Amino acid sequence: MSSPLVVMKFGGSSVANADRIRRVARRIARERANGSRLVVVVSAMGDTTDELLALAAAITDDPDPRELDVLLATGEHQSATLMSMALQSLGTPAISLTGPQAGITTDGTYGKARIAGIDPRRVDAELAQGKVVIVAGFQGRSVKPVEHLDDAPGASDAHASEITTLGRGGSDTTAVALAAQLKADRCQIFTDVKGIYTADPRLVPDARQLPVIGYEEMMELAHQGAQVMNVRAVELGWVNDVVIEVLSSFEDAPGTEIREDPLVEQRNKVRGIAHDRNVAKVTLVAVPDQPGVARRVFDPLASSGITIDMIVQNVGHGGATDLSFTIPRVELAKAKRILEPLVRELGARELTTDSSVAKVSIVGAGIQNAPGYAARMFGTLADNEINIEMISTSEIRITTIIAEDRVEDAVRALHAQFALEVPEAAETAAG
Amino acid sequence: MSSPLVVMKFGGSSVANADRIRRVARRIARERANGSRLVVVVSAMGDTTDELLALAAAITDDPDPRELDVLLATGEHQSATLMSMALQSLGTPAISLTGPQAGITTDGTYGKARIAGIDPRRVDAELAQGKVVIVAGFQGRSVKPVEHLDDAPGASDAHASEITTLGRGGSDTTAVALAAQLKADRCQIFTDVKGIYTADPRLVPDARQLPVIGYEEMMELAHQGAQVMNVRAVELGWVNDVVIEVLSSFEDAPGTEIREDPLVEQRNKVRGIAHDRNVAKVTLVAVPDQPGVARRVFDPLASSGITIDMIVQNVGHGGATDLSFTIPRVELAKAKRILEPLVRELGARELTTDSSVAKVSIVGAGIQNAPGYAARMFGTLADNEINIEMISTSEIRITTIIAEDRVEDAVRALHAQFALEVPEAAETAAG
Repeated sequence: MSSPLVVMKFGGSSVANADRIRRVARRIARERANGSRLVVVVSAMGDTTDELLALAAAITDDPDPRELDVLLATGEHQSATLMSMALQSLGTPAISLTGPQAGITTDGTYGKARIAGIDPRRVDAELAQGKVVIVAGFQGRSVKPVEHLDDAPGASDAHASEITTLGRGGSDTTAVALAAQLKADRCQIFTDVKGIYTADPRLVPDARQLPVIGYEEMMELAHQGAQVMNVRAVELGWVNDVVIEVLSSFEDAPGTEIREDPLVEQRNKVRGIAHDRNVAKVTLVAVPDQPGVARRVFDPLASSGITIDMIVQNVGHGGATDLSFTIPRVELAKAKRILEPLVRELGARELTTDSSVAKVSIVGAGIQNAPGYAARMFGTLADNEINIEMISTSEIRITTIIAEDRVEDAVRALHAQFALEVPEAAETAAG
Repeated sequence: MSSPLVVMKFGGSSVANADRIRRVARRIARERANGSRLVVVVSAMGDTTDELLALAAAITDDPDPRELDVLLATGEHQSATLMSMALQSLGTPAISLTGPQAGITTDGTYGKARIAGIDPRRVDAELAQGKVVIVAGFQGRSVKPVEHLDDAPGASDAHASEITTLGRGGSDTTAVALAAQLKADRCQIFTDVKGIYTADPRLVPDARQLPVIGYEEMMELAHQGAQVMNVRAVELGWVNDVVIEVLSSFEDAPGTEIREDPLVEQRNKVRGIAHDRNVAKVTLVAVPDQPGVARRVFDPLASSGITIDMIVQNVGHGGATDLSFTIPRVELAKAKRILEPLVRELGARELTTDSSVAKVSIVGAGIQNAPGYAARMFGTLADNEINIEMISTSEIRITTIIAEDRVEDAVRALHAQFALEVPEAAETAAG
């Protein structure tokens, strides 16, 4: 029987400098000494990605996505080589592989590529030689169809290869995809927190770490602002049935398992509270209530790469309606440039925007089927004189938009209302 | 007839920050507007390579050469993408290629690989689309024979590709190799000086820029300390008959052409004076005068990657002799660790070292065949009371080791002695 295969992923703060890299290397070396075969995925060191983005911004307002991807991918090349050196200096055989060397191919969409496949031959070969395999996260290769190229490139021709990155949080996706492809026994995501909490512990002192959370709940939490895990990585884990452990790089403590949750029906229905401050609200006031309006608003935003989050449009009165939606706050200036000319074209009264709002959500499997959760949420906010500006719901989530300066109050009040600090019976029994 | 093809290379100081990159981009865009097809090779920005080396040194004293190469290669990836972005922002179509994308393959020796070949298909295809092709200098790919890899990798399989770097100054080599392969009309090396001088103008105020210098003379000057051009790049230009222009990134002024020099016989025989402070002298005092001693000294130094420069051993007296040689000063500590145990084994009296020496050379085609140059050189140093500690000569060069604190005096005195500030007749006639 071969020894267990573990995929470990370390984020940027875990490898932010030489000291931390050496500390993480010691942890990896201990795990290796326990007999596991290891594939380690690393993000870029600390703020490297932001520094590279700033460099590009100093050159041009509008960097070519292809060039940006090659630029950003260097961050993970660097951390991967340094981690490999650190392991070797501890006497642990190791080798770093870039995304292309690790056989990771993508769909070729610059800046937010999806993994198309993994050719595991090189990783397998290095594991078979007893090495810890360090893989640069966040990246893969695609094959560029180059016009005028004399003969068609082979699928693996280096000179026709393009580097593509997977977008923010992409190293999580790299780790989960490798775990799925290699049929790893465990997939561990090491972060600067101990696991997934019922709410952000910086806001809610008695927030409780969850021992287990279901894929769907985790996706909603991540999507609604919990920044510990990347949404797409969770989705990929779900589809491939990879159990993902989230745990601390800096202490030896049990983390949170993201997995199919068989106990979901027995649990307290609200599992966590997420908040997100990177939100701006846009309203087109008194838009004519006609077919095709929404498309004319959202098509140009989508073409500019602006992600629309919540959309709310009420029943119209007198042939006009208000159309509101939220976008990432950093995209507001761009969205205004696109929308202002449209106000007149559409015959709307005006465009209003508000960048001092935030999103607060309660998440739990089945809360839409059980009565009373929405009422309790809205009642709690009202008791605290917090005004709700927009509401949106999904199968397992209720989201509100409120004033940003009331976020802490809202999260704390909701955490108390649903008694999230109290361990659930099933957890107590299990642990 | 197709438009002329020009290879332009910009060193680290020419692309040290965003401002300089944009300035260089404007220069490239002007050249493109003149109708040339352009391949641009860039080094890493400013001190990036040294910063990456420092990062590796913070992790381990003895970084794996393979990992170090992947780490260092990121510096050129970054500058190449930024240059491409800068050109695009000026409306000049451009694309950056890594060494592997540009089809540059090497012999696979990490840290000092030699270019084995260039597959020009991708570069040709991008040029055919009217783009300025930016190539990351200093690097190429080799194919790793991976044990246990199920099937033999194809010559171009990305997952079996390894990144290798060409060593210090390797971007010059990239440029000259591309110029040779692509049969470029011109190969321009842009630097922070205006060209090749008769001596370092910081030491000798009336040092004169040479309009033309022969390959062989340039190789000796570079090898003896002139840091403007990489020795191997000059050699590659010589073998492939590529005319190399060295000129300033920052001003529009004629540079120096490195080429086969048909006028060599008509010239003032001393063409330039080189000096090098990165020198240490090592002497094994009273080594037994027996066969095999030199091998026992130099074999372990070579295995440790220490480059030996001059070696001097005189006729022995009484069965013993002194063996002296010079090495790069930065290697002295390592050399001492290797040699100290050998002193007793070899039966030598002692090991002495001196790191306050420097090398001063006069270079000129044919000076060994013409009488009097050595005498004039040694006499000039004697007149200035500069003691000569070692002497070595080649076909076109005479080199002395002197005390480091007399370097300026020596270079100035020799420059005056050989009247290098006076333009040669042939130059005057031609220019």
